[in-house]
Amino acid sequence: MATKLFETVQQLLDSFHTVGGINHIDGHNLPSRDAVVEITRDLLRLLFPGFYDKESIHSAQLVKYATELTSSIARRLEQEIHKSLEYRPSAGGHDQDYAAAAAYETAAFLQQLPAVRAILQTDVLSAYEGDPAAISTEEIILAYPGIEAIAVQRMAHLLYQRHIALIPRIMTEWAHNKTGIDIHPGAQIGEHFFIDHGTGVVIGETSVIGCNVKIYQGVTLGAKSFPKDDKGRIVKGIKRHPNIEDDVTIYAGATILGDVTIGRGSIIGGNVWLIESVPPGTVVYQEGGQTKMKHAAKDRDKMVGHT
Amino acid sequence: MATKLFETVQQLLDSFHTVGGINHIDGHNLPSRDAVVEITRDLLRLLFPGFYDKESIHSAQLVKYATELTSSIARRLEQEIHKSLEYRPSAGGHDQDYAAAAAYETAAFLQQLPAVRAILQTDVLSAYEGDPAAISTEEIILAYPGIEAIAVQRMAHLLYQRHIALIPRIMTEWAHNKTGIDIHPGAQIGEHFFIDHGTGVVIGETSVIGCNVKIYQGVTLGAKSFPKDDKGRIVKGIKRHPNIEDDVTIYAGATILGDVTIGRGSIIGGNVWLIESVPPGTVVYQEGGQTKMKHAAKDRDKMVGHT
Amino acid sequence: MATKLFETVQQLLDSFHTVGGINHIDGHNLPSRDAVVEITRDLLRLLFPGFYDKESIHSAQLVKYATELTSSIARRLEQEIHKSLEYRPSAGGHDQDYAAAAAYETAAFLQQLPAVRAILQTDVLSAYEGDPAAISTEEIILAYPGIEAIAVQRMAHLLYQRHIALIPRIMTEWAHNKTGIDIHPGAQIGEHFFIDHGTGVVIGETSVIGCNVKIYQGVTLGAKSFPKDDKGRIVKGIKRHPNIEDDVTIYAGATILGDVTIGRGSIIGGNVWLIESVPPGTVVYQEGGQTKMKHAAKDRDKMVGHT
Amino acid sequence: MATKLFETVQQLLDSFHTVGGINHIDGHNLPSRDAVVEITRDLLRLLFPGFYDKESIHSAQLVKYATELTSSIARRLEQEIHKSLEYRPSAGGHDQDYAAAAAYETAAFLQQLPAVRAILQTDVLSAYEGDPAAISTEEIILAYPGIEAIAVQRMAHLLYQRHIALIPRIMTEWAHNKTGIDIHPGAQIGEHFFIDHGTGVVIGETSVIGCNVKIYQGVTLGAKSFPKDDKGRIVKGIKRHPNIEDDVTIYAGATILGDVTIGRGSIIGGNVWLIESVPPGTVVYQEGGQTKMKHAAKDRDKMVGHT
Amino acid sequence: MATKLFETVQQLLDSFHTVGGINHIDGHNLPSRDAVVEITRDLLRLLFPGFYDKESIHSAQLVKYATELTSSIARRLEQEIHKSLEYRPSAGGHDQDYAAAAAYETAAFLQQLPAVRAILQTDVLSAYEGDPAAISTEEIILAYPGIEAIAVQRMAHLLYQRHIALIPRIMTEWAHNKTGIDIHPGAQIGEHFFIDHGTGVVIGETSVIGCNVKIYQGVTLGAKSFPKDDKGRIVKGIKRHPNIEDDVTIYAGATILGDVTIGRGSIIGGNVWLIESVPPGTVVYQEGGQTKMKHAAKDRDKMVGHT
Amino acid sequence: MATKLFETVQQLLDSFHTVGGINHIDGHNLPSRDAVVEITRDLLRLLFPGFYDKESIHSAQLVKYATELTSSIARRLEQEIHKSLEYRPSAGGHDQDYAAAAAYETAAFLQQLPAVRAILQTDVLSAYEGDPAAISTEEIILAYPGIEAIAVQRMAHLLYQRHIALIPRIMTEWAHNKTGIDIHPGAQIGEHFFIDHGTGVVIGETSVIGCNVKIYQGVTLGAKSFPKDDKGRIVKGIKRHPNIEDDVTIYAGATILGDVTIGRGSIIGGNVWLIESVPPGTVVYQEGGQTKMKHAAKDRDKMVGHT
Repeated sequence: MATKLFETVQQLLDSFHTVGGINHIDGHNLPSRDAVVEITRDLLRLLFPGFYDKESIHSAQLVKYATELTSSIARRLEQEIHKSLEYRPSAGGHDQDYAAAAAYETAAFLQQLPAVRAILQTDVLSAYEGDPAAISTEEIILAYPGIEAIAVQRMAHLLYQRHIALIPRIMTEWAHNKTGIDIHPGAQIGEHFFIDHGTGVVIGETSVIGCNVKIYQGVTLGAKSFPKDDKGRIVKGIKRHPNIEDDVTIYAGATILGDVTIGRGSIIGGNVWLIESVPPGTVVYQEGGQTKMKHAAKDRDKMVGHT
Repeated sequence: MATKLFETVQQLLDSFHTVGGINHIDGHNLPSRDAVVEITRDLLRLLFPGFYDKESIHSAQLVKYATELTSSIARRLEQEIHKSLEYRPSAGGHDQDYAAAAAYETAAFLQQLPAVRAILQTDVLSAYEGDPAAISTEEIILAYPGIEAIAVQRMAHLLYQRHIALIPRIMTEWAHNKTGIDIHPGAQIGEHFFIDHGTGVVIGETSVIGCNVKIYQGVTLGAKSFPKDDKGRIVKGIKRHPNIEDDVTIYAGATILGDVTIGRGSIIGGNVWLIESVPPGTVVYQEGGQTKMKHAAKDRDKMVGHT
Repeated sequence: MATKLFETVQQLLDSFHTVGGINHIDGHNLPSRDAVVEITRDLLRLLFPGFYDKESIHSAQLVKYATELTSSIARRLEQEIHKSLEYRPSAGGHDQDYAAAAAYETAAFLQQLPAVRAILQTDVLSAYEGDPAAISTEEIILAYPGIEAIAVQRMAHLLYQRHIALIPRIMTEWAHNKTGIDIHPGAQIGEHFFIDHGTGVVIGETSVIGCNVKIYQGVTLGAKSFPKDDKGRIVKGIKRHPNIEDDVTIYAGATILGDVTIGRGSIIGGNVWLIESVPPGTVVYQEGGQTKMKHAAKDRDKMVGHT
Repeated sequence: MATKLFETVQQLLDSFHTVGGINHIDGHNLPSRDAVVEITRDLLRLLFPGFYDKESIHSAQLVKYATELTSSIARRLEQEIHKSLEYRPSAGGHDQDYAAAAAYETAAFLQQLPAVRAILQTDVLSAYEGDPAAISTEEIILAYPGIEAIAVQRMAHLLYQRHIALIPRIMTEWAHNKTGIDIHPGAQIGEHFFIDHGTGVVIGETSVIGCNVKIYQGVTLGAKSFPKDDKGRIVKGIKRHPNIEDDVTIYAGATILGDVTIGRGSIIGGNVWLIESVPPGTVVYQEGGQTKMKHAAKDRDKMVGHT
Repeated sequence: MATKLFETVQQLLDSFHTVGGINHIDGHNLPSRDAVVEITRDLLRLLFPGFYDKESIHSAQLVKYATELTSSIARRLEQEIHKSLEYRPSAGGHDQDYAAAAAYETAAFLQQLPAVRAILQTDVLSAYEGDPAAISTEEIILAYPGIEAIAVQRMAHLLYQRHIALIPRIMTEWAHNKTGIDIHPGAQIGEHFFIDHGTGVVIGETSVIGCNVKIYQGVTLGAKSFPKDDKGRIVKGIKRHPNIEDDVTIYAGATILGDVTIGRGSIIGGNVWLIESVPPGTVVYQEGGQTKMKHAAKDRDKMVGHT
Repeated sequence: MATKLFETVQQLLDSFHTVGGINHIDGHNLPSRDAVVEITRDLLRLLFPGFYDKESIHSAQLVKYATELTSSIARRLEQEIHKSLEYRPSAGGHDQDYAAAAAYETAAFLQQLPAVRAILQTDVLSAYEGDPAAISTEEIILAYPGIEAIAVQRMAHLLYQRHIALIPRIMTEWAHNKTGIDIHPGAQIGEHFFIDHGTGVVIGETSVIGCNVKIYQGVTLGAKSFPKDDKGRIVKGIKRHPNIEDDVTIYAGATILGDVTIGRGSIIGGNVWLIESVPPGTVVYQEGGQTKMKHAAKDRDKMVGHT
């Protein structure tokens, strides 16, 4: 009776040897998804003290709270970054001091958190001012998925900029799982950014978004086509996603594809399909099943709808 | 070596003082998101006894099961409502007995649970009758995200009606995270309600939905524009979302915006964009990239498609 | 004071007796959702050894790792399948040996896992080759929701084929919760399958998908209408979803409904609405708010866009 | 390589078949040690509300606290008693309704808890008055192992009296593990009982202890010899341990063996070895390596010492 | 059926009102036993870095490790000390700033930890030199209960000296539970202290122990009698336990009672009963059931035995 | 305000550098106490299947149960033994293959478990026959600390014999913590061994115990003196504890010291102090404060008493 079970085990062991590429055995440690997720949760506690904690925080204990949390995050993040560096050796190629580099990268990252807090403050304000259903900033931090998604992406982007492998993507994918909002760590996003509802939003790797931009659920900022090299392999890393200038609003379900530019102050209506650039101040909207554009429109809000 | 870490901590402490609005320190306790989520999970166990529990329930233990669970929920929910009341003092303004009010609100809420169960029974039936893939009501309760989302919203709506702050929104946002279905606690929804698949559904705060309505994934019941006051600030709380009358079906990806009315028995086809009212019995559908309408159609199901 | 609480409990107990269909008391054990989810997590560890584990795996311990994990899964899965068989007695009707049947089904399922690994290897390769943002196969396994969704569905499909009730749907619904990708366990899917981003994807029960197919976020493969029997009840289980032939790509937000066939090598553009079959090599795309088709197009990639 | 592991497993499986008496496979469920320990912990919370809880209890929530805890304990204890009854069928021998009996025994046990609280109040008072190091009754409940041991034994004794198998012994053995104090559930113990320090105390099954008795660490109330039957087997269950009358004090390390009686108000000195009865008012003490006795002594405390 | 359960709850609620002294409801928060135990565990990690941790510690992370652990302990200990201060207001009587006092006491305690480490180093050395079974200092720290007991007592003693209520006793009682060694927080103990095996050791509140003292299992340093006041109440807090001078060894099971002095370098044999002072260099031992003494003995080790 | 905390951290960091021997930083990994404890718990589940498990085991799942548990233990134990080998390099001195050695030692250990089960069966039988309070063998396995202590020691002894460092001592010290019974892994113990109550039992490293021996609480089998070398250092590892021949009973509190031999069938009475050998069949007992001996006594049980 034990034989059948042991046979299955033997076949799986064979499969581990013959079916490669989806095992990770005897290799360098990979960053642990669970560890990265725990660190990300704790980073959110550091960005929004008192909101993600079970108990309230008194100012008398703030020094200890911040010290404990920061040193704990630093210790754990350094471990994961260390693994990430070993996994992807830098271009220099010769023998590196990964421990020192991991410590350096971790410290550099943490020093930027106060700046991240400053920009997140603008995002929260933007949500409060932009949603008639929002009745307090506390509600926004506690219950708006868009704030969580952008907070995680802003941190992941810092690591992406420093060429840390795997970790930033694990961070944003965790936020994607939770919120349905998929922002690549590579995207550059200005202050006062607001995503409402958010499910189905996709923002690609080379997107560039200005200040004071609003985006609703189901919006895609995607690529239009993928250039290939001589051997028919997709060329990785080139600019292929939209540029959204300041003060643009993009309503639910709109799709904007390619390295196009949506000019300052434009409004893209719900469900619009757009694969070309538009000048500043343009209103793009659906009417009678057709996509139409107007410039310098007065009552532009009324034309486009949202949620 | 310790110096660098301590500097970062100091800068974060400075940030907590200078970057306000996204800290919650020394304030009244906020309701704890984790606590509210735990309570919501246990409320689902009370609504669907035997489905959310790890072990099966025997009728001999039903008294103890219900007593234990109800008193546990009561105790914890009262704590969170207490915090919520302190956080948002009532209009009266003078010194209130929050403890007594929290106990009263908690008891009032729990007394409505049998009625919630009665209406959820109709929702489950509606799913069973409406989906050819559904092979049992057990499967629907165990594996249909729409049932979970509507069960949570129906409870959150009771708290919303009693002006309890933050808690109802935390409840529906948890359901949103899990199911991708975002129904605001304010929405009024009749019996026999069915959402299939559900990812991307958004139902706004002032929506009013009748009985026997079916909704598929990606449907938005949103606002069309936000009136502003003299100072350019969005006016909060006014009616701005659709009214869906009895027996309406809305297929995947349809978008309905504004305080419009979809008349009884209408069918809104997939991907349709609709910003005006339609009379009872209307079929709205896409054809050749155009939105078309028919009334009193016979084979209306064939025109619109779904999932 | 205790009286009020006890009254509420009494009313709930009454509700358990009078409002049926949404209780599960004194019945056969249902498969436990929590147990099935834990088993599914561990199955993913077995399919991708080293990726879902907190610690790295050394080849010296591989025998113990695989033996421990396989026997643990076998023991727990057998329990859940046993409950599932009791819950839904087989057609034969007479008294069955459920324990023997559960052991048999469990062993048969596990023996297919090496084959599942082989096909998942092709899915990972397909993602690596198809996404310019993907910089390693490790990143794909660690952070692409599409891989997780398809891995779970491929296993659930094996149980669906053996007529195991409830368990396969709980598995795919868990993946739906995590990834926003809703693939019914009944769908038949060929090798080299790639879903990018994925939020909002719905693939219905009787869909048949060939090899080397690519799907983007928000794509629906749904039913168009539900035939009813003489008594007006929906007929369950008939073929009603699309057939997607080899080498087809379907871009974001496209909707394909009904038992139609998308011919080999076709490309369906973003947001396209399609309720009829198209021959091999067809390009379907939106232009000026209209759906258009071309055949044997050269630069077809440029016409359709994606993400 | 897998072979060696599988051989060991096979030999263990063989051992499970050939070495009986220390397996429990396919038998009636035994009460679960872990479950009984959890129930005992919760019973202590019910006996000493506010002392074993992490958070403080407010009187406004007392109804919910007591209801939740009592119903939870009732549900779980009933399960364990049910198993215990099945494991040891009652003398009647014919087919019993174990479910009803378990419910009855559980309810009967819980109804005695208020009386247990009343007697524990006297034990705490006795500790406070008897130990110069005790500075508050709170300290006694929080930190005196003797109180925990006697509280658990008083409850276990109630179950022992009702002939519930295994559970009472698991309860007192848990207390033994924690405190080093081993009191058999069968021992009858009067009010105002105090054990100081306690490590090494052993109180046998048929001991009878009066009111206002004090015992120090290392005291044994044991049996002297075990009568055997015709076949040389030990006769189980007969009276074989000491009777300690009211107001007796027994100092550290004293050993009293057999069915003897220590008369009211006697004092047994440290390390004394005693296998015979002594009349009321006796002082027994060590002097020059000899055991001596005095009656009606004045300064008797000075002769015996303690801790 | 629910009635019986509700009656029991009602009787318990009545008992909470009528049986006082063993409830803690609506009072000041008591220090939480669980919290104090967690803090004590973490303090042991700080005293013996790398021994109580699951993972090994690298020097590169030492700053973060120490910072995180120290600030975490500081934050939590301050909370418990705060409760302790509220629970027992100081002699001053007027309204105190407990928050400031708790912060002060916590900081003062933590600053003494380096000194505690220095003295524990001598204790470990003493164990290594004194036990032929000890094969490394690592083994002593990992597996000798005496080291754990004395480490906890040395810390608890610091709090006892500062008149912090309840917490030090909870700490030593936790160590008592784990090790069977019961040392009161009040005992003053010199360096190079060694307890072997330890079960049953009791060291009373006003004991004073010199340097280089060795104690074996079952040794009691107790009080001989308790003076009472005019009203027959025990006088609390007076000196009543032994003084053990430097270089004394006390073998297993010996009992020393009262405010006596064991002179420098003496040896107290196993099971000896001693209630009077002995001069320096005395050997006390059992022979033929009698307690004997010798002075300035040569082969004194041979006379007394140990373990 | 942060300064004070950071100063304390700095002083602790200094202490880690200056106070050596009680840190373990940057060294070889030590076996983890927590891991060894978890492994020991699981080994007990393997020795007594069905008794330490929360759920009952059915024979249909026995293969999976044993395979899962054995492979899990093997994997984890091998890790800890690996660390232990690195920590203490073998006498050979040259570069060893620790991974291979750890795998070999682990496999060798596990192959002896069936034999350990066979001898534990005799221990359980001995308890059942020797204690009038024992009413079933189930009770003995569930609630007698002596069985747990001897089961752990028998396993630890196997590792001790193979010169595995630290792990066996951590195992027996865990049992000591739980049961108050301190048996060194080095002790050699025959079959049919029974310890009743057990608190305070100490059995030294070089003790040799025959078959069918019974021991009660507080018994010490210790060393009498420790020979020292030329430099005054204790000589480690020489024979210094008693030999207890077959069929000997030792009652509560007895102390036997040195490399003496207690002849077959002897009875050592309670509290007896013995530092010399006695011939077979001797009864040693206390009478009038004196230790007396008789040979070939008839009613010997009556002379000695126990518990």
